[in-house]
Amino acid sequence: MNQYAMLHIVDSSYCFPIGKNEITLRLRTAKDDMKEVWVVYESKYVIGTTQKKARLEKKFSGQLYDYYSVTLNLKDTRIGYVFYVYDGKDYMYFSEDGLTKEYDFTLGFYNFFQYPYINEADIMPKVNWTKNAVFYQIFVERFAVGDKNWDKSYVNMKWGDIPTPKSFAGGDIKGIINELDYIKGLGVNTIYLTPVFKSISNHKYDIIDYYEVDSQFGSNEDLKELVMRAHDKGIRIVLDAVFNHCSYECRQFQDVMEKGIESPYYDWFVIYGDKPDPKAGNYEMFASCDYMPKLNTSNKAVTEFLCDIGCHYVTNYNIDGWRLDVSDEVSHEFWREFRKRIKECNSECVIIGENWHDASNYLRGDQYDSIMNYSFTKLCLDYFAKDKMDAYQAAGKLNDILARNTDTVNTMMLNLLDSHDTFRFFTEVKCDEEKMKAALALLFMFPGMPCIYYGTELFMQGGYDPDCRRCMDWDGIRDNKYSEYISYIKKLAAIRNKDDLAGADAFITATDNVLIVKRTTDTKTYSLYINLTDNDECVENIHVNGHSHVLKEELL
Amino acid sequence: MNQYAMLHIVDSSYCFPIGKNEITLRLRTAKDDMKEVWVVYESKYVIGTTQKKARLEKKFSGQLYDYYSVTLNLKDTRIGYVFYVYDGKDYMYFSEDGLTKEYDFTLGFYNFFQYPYINEADIMPKVNWTKNAVFYQIFVERFAVGDKNWDKSYVNMKWGDIPTPKSFAGGDIKGIINELDYIKGLGVNTIYLTPVFKSISNHKYDIIDYYEVDSQFGSNEDLKELVMRAHDKGIRIVLDAVFNHCSYECRQFQDVMEKGIESPYYDWFVIYGDKPDPKAGNYEMFASCDYMPKLNTSNKAVTEFLCDIGCHYVTNYNIDGWRLDVSDEVSHEFWREFRKRIKECNSECVIIGENWHDASNYLRGDQYDSIMNYSFTKLCLDYFAKDKMDAYQAAGKLNDILARNTDTVNTMMLNLLDSHDTFRFFTEVKCDEEKMKAALALLFMFPGMPCIYYGTELFMQGGYDPDCRRCMDWDGIRDNKYSEYISYIKKLAAIRNKDDLAGADAFITATDNVLIVKRTTDTKTYSLYINLTDNDECVENIHVNGHSHVLKEELL
Repeated sequence: MNQYAMLHIVDSSYCFPIGKNEITLRLRTAKDDMKEVWVVYESKYVIGTTQKKARLEKKFSGQLYDYYSVTLNLKDTRIGYVFYVYDGKDYMYFSEDGLTKEYDFTLGFYNFFQYPYINEADIMPKVNWTKNAVFYQIFVERFAVGDKNWDKSYVNMKWGDIPTPKSFAGGDIKGIINELDYIKGLGVNTIYLTPVFKSISNHKYDIIDYYEVDSQFGSNEDLKELVMRAHDKGIRIVLDAVFNHCSYECRQFQDVMEKGIESPYYDWFVIYGDKPDPKAGNYEMFASCDYMPKLNTSNKAVTEFLCDIGCHYVTNYNIDGWRLDVSDEVSHEFWREFRKRIKECNSECVIIGENWHDASNYLRGDQYDSIMNYSFTKLCLDYFAKDKMDAYQAAGKLNDILARNTDTVNTMMLNLLDSHDTFRFFTEVKCDEEKMKAALALLFMFPGMPCIYYGTELFMQGGYDPDCRRCMDWDGIRDNKYSEYISYIKKLAAIRNKDDLAGADAFITATDNVLIVKRTTDTKTYSLYINLTDNDECVENIHVNGHSHVLKEELL
Repeated sequence: MNQYAMLHIVDSSYCFPIGKNEITLRLRTAKDDMKEVWVVYESKYVIGTTQKKARLEKKFSGQLYDYYSVTLNLKDTRIGYVFYVYDGKDYMYFSEDGLTKEYDFTLGFYNFFQYPYINEADIMPKVNWTKNAVFYQIFVERFAVGDKNWDKSYVNMKWGDIPTPKSFAGGDIKGIINELDYIKGLGVNTIYLTPVFKSISNHKYDIIDYYEVDSQFGSNEDLKELVMRAHDKGIRIVLDAVFNHCSYECRQFQDVMEKGIESPYYDWFVIYGDKPDPKAGNYEMFASCDYMPKLNTSNKAVTEFLCDIGCHYVTNYNIDGWRLDVSDEVSHEFWREFRKRIKECNSECVIIGENWHDASNYLRGDQYDSIMNYSFTKLCLDYFAKDKMDAYQAAGKLNDILARNTDTVNTMMLNLLDSHDTFRFFTEVKCDEEKMKAALALLFMFPGMPCIYYGTELFMQGGYDPDCRRCMDWDGIRDNKYSEYISYIKKLAAIRNKDDLAGADAFITATDNVLIVKRTTDTKTYSLYINLTDNDECVENIHVNGHSHVLKEELL
């Protein structure tokens, strides 16, 4: 028995309530180490004299570890528990004190694991609509030009040319409104927009006024209309909350530039000295961008200011969610307050953090609902594009990614192949159409919400920023240049639109050549087979040729 | 290299800021597996091109694992990092993706570990005065009778007789006031009182009115006087917050008993049905005590009510802390609000949870400062009383206990051998004076705040509740019956009073026979040697006979 591998952490993704009387427990063991895994449990007030037993099933099989899981339905939610494991040789107990041959339940109150009581406030609720969500990320400047009569004198590139960091192509909100039918046609039901508020840049991640839609993009009324029209078509709108930093040109920072320490806004930022000096860089900023001073969210006035903005668009514009830019650099305390305020306005407003790394401490139900799942992105790069992993390793890593968070969070993760912050995935796979399709199939079959970056349905190419922010090729679309790709996306999205995959566990395994993802709903089983090798293989009576994938739908 | 054992969790006791520019990182490895452990780090915005390196030292050596640690002083606190380890054979990198022979820093943003930014709000502050705190827990009913002219007609036992669950002996707050010099004489500087508010029981954990001191114990003025007089002598007062449940007889529950679902207090409790029925037990309660209905802290009005009480005694009575009864059965959300409110009243007010188990999720700086360290209690029982561990195992377990929490939390843990909820420790060690003394020495040498339960200085005996709540033997004290024990406690307390051990790491190791605890301050080294075996052993030139201990103080 590999005792070093065993891990259980109370009140974490290893132990979390999913209802008033239901709790899920997980135990990590070394891969292929155990024959049986049990939990021995009871109300902690009686476990000294009587115990119940339940068996855990292997839910995830990672690269090094297996993760066993069980959901208990409890009468008394104040439980103590220890695990009881069998490796084919020994039966052992596993408690807070580690592995032991015997376990004295009469002294269990000292070292059993426990979930002391399921308080309603500690149950993370799901945002209901996320279960069928198919996201479409739009970089507004490059998606579509709506109002061509508008003053577009700032435009300095021809639509379709390769953009530079300072290019303006003229995309706007009206353009999105005009293309809502196109978007809906893809099977998309949620749009996430990069920032739309007043800003001098094309990306608008440096905001001057959070209450004003940038005039290049249209008016506040246009934004309201977009949400209304989208809702009419069953499409939700998620906006980008850039609360880590603002623009150098915003009113508050300019006031500090002028008055220094005498400004009422001095404490809105973190300034080293009496006055901010962009040349000296004597203040906290995003990355090393002196035009993006960091907002001091430890200041209550700043917290109020930003939460008010968050609520304003939820309440007065009816938006359906916020994606939080650079959210990992903002304090837990701020996001707790933000969540409280936002959920008071609309409990179904989704909150999605931009944390590229393990964010489990933000995903306990008190801060975000979800994050952009860049760990999934990295896996796809390593497996599909960089040839760094075989199918076994990919299956293991996908399981490890799922084991990282609670089941509740997994259904809400925003999975993506690429974004405005990465290379285009089609470029990463060197324009290999089969690889691109297989990766998209995995994206749509993986638990969570698939998010496609605008243009992915055209297999658009592009390197790092700004090249990943090219203009949509509307002419090409009208000329049916991309029909095959678009149809493929539609097919995948249709599965997510029709069936409720959200509640279906994913079983991810592999053979020598083939990565297998299986999801079983109440009525169907979906099986995805991906073979990136040179060898054909027959798996479960399905012939999977080298360099191909098969997505099969079977009625139960 | 034992890859299964390796563990690092971001934003946890493995990675925590201790100042605006300082962060501590820990890595867990298999015991005795590594020769060198390094961290390779840099601001996450430049780590792709340049990296720094720092070596981690073995800080804790547990039963199965070693824990390496380093504190980094950072210019830019937005760091990415990976570990670099050497087991004498291979050099390997350890990132979010596990162990790898190579590591590509240019793609590090996908899988390095990271602490994204040290926000001030996320740094857990220490309560300054805790660094020299020596606690004394008083079960008020049994400590001392102050005002003998008072109406003590409820008293139903002779002072000094063995108590039953319903015994009243007459102890009161005046009794404590009268004995403040005695308490101070022990070297104690903080008193923690079991509940003092209106209640029909002798323990008063079933509170009828949180705003009224129980008349058996005195008046609200007496409580105020106690705090004032204690403060005059440099003694702090911590009260017991019983917020999980109240008394059946409290005004709010009685109103629900009368009016059922029509009562404005119906939602203050969790009732299954229109009306609570103690016989049917149709409401949530503490353990299975129908006279202690659970308060519904998911109800905002209840949160307000309890936080107001918490603030009232901090602000108007100047108490120095709250010990939180059954705190693990109350929601995280409640304790977050409670902490915010209490710390606004007095940031130096200490908050100590009653969690008998791993409480790291309550100890991140947003809820408690500390817990009653019953894991330490269990270790002492296993090692000193139950003969379940040898010195090696004890040393390992003590290190595991320290590795569980951040260094910040460890300095504030409330360590105890026993309490009103356990057997008396002297009874557990079968009245073996040497074992008792050795255990006390360990209690005072272990990082955190030692807490002695009233009567421990008399080596008082007692079994489980109510036997562990016997009366103080004041006659015996006046007759110098306990001088030797009291002197011993004074000697130990004096070390904590004089020197600042709080900042000094503990190095806990063992030989075949001897458990060794070493702590080095700026001026001194304290070494404690405990030998529970039959064999004499000479350790570091110190002769440690079987069944003895040595506590040595050396000037540097």
